[in-house]
Amino acid sequence: MMNNCIFCSIAGGSLPSMKVFDDEHTLAFMDTAGDVDGHILVIPKKHAKNILDCGEEELSYLMKTVKKVALHLVEKCGYSGVNLLNASDESAGQSVPHFHIHIIPRKNGDNIDAWPHFEGAVHETEDIFRKISMI
Amino acid sequence: MMNNCIFCSIAGGSLPSMKVFDDEHTLAFMDTAGDVDGHILVIPKKHAKNILDCGEEELSYLMKTVKKVALHLVEKCGYSGVNLLNASDESAGQSVPHFHIHIIPRKNGDNIDAWPHFEGAVHETEDIFRKISMI
Repeated sequence: MMNNCIFCSIAGGSLPSMKVFDDEHTLAFMDTAGDVDGHILVIPKKHAKNILDCGEEELSYLMKTVKKVALHLVEKCGYSGVNLLNASDESAGQSVPHFHIHIIPRKNGDNIDAWPHFEGAVHETEDIFRKISMI
Repeated sequence: MMNNCIFCSIAGGSLPSMKVFDDEHTLAFMDTAGDVDGHILVIPKKHAKNILDCGEEELSYLMKTVKKVALHLVEKCGYSGVNLLNASDESAGQSVPHFHIHIIPRKNGDNIDAWPHFEGAVHETEDIFRKISMI
């Protein structure tokens, strides 16, 4: 538990939330921004800032919960799929510094555009590839 | 291996790709759409359509690789963070029916907007919450 972390407070129960799923290691709750219908956040209860410093076991638990919630949405709630979104680091647009994965429930004809408006690559893919390949 | 699946063919090596990371269970390779610099796809080698039908173990391996690639980008390639994106199901905009997580490498001032342009929720968050809570 990290002092002054809003998501640690939500996980610990000292701040209220609309809980969609709750277990020992993870919590899923409604995002209250009102930006898109059904916006859910899934977090590890153990504080990590983002995927870069999240332990492998916690990451595993987190994704298990993301899958559980996604399946529930499709099997029980009339949705057909989900979008998953994550920003890891302020440079990526991360606003709350506690690892969270956004789930956007989807159905055909919902008129949601969940793909970012990328403006086109500036560099050749091959050039970047040569710099980042781990092989 | 699924017949006629382009990502199974890439994983199996019968189609070429710019491989960023490759191990027994997962492959990371460059997306060639040229929509945004450094766009990487990470896939499980065992075919699954998306998160809804991906086995827990495969999902775990996949996220381990996503983390490895993200860390490499930050520790070795001059990036500060990443965005992760996934579309699970056609209704969510999934185009290739083999589970893939998009990694967009990020650095401060890169002028990339990787957050979708959501047009605002239509329904009250509380109303959707009551329909989807698993608790």
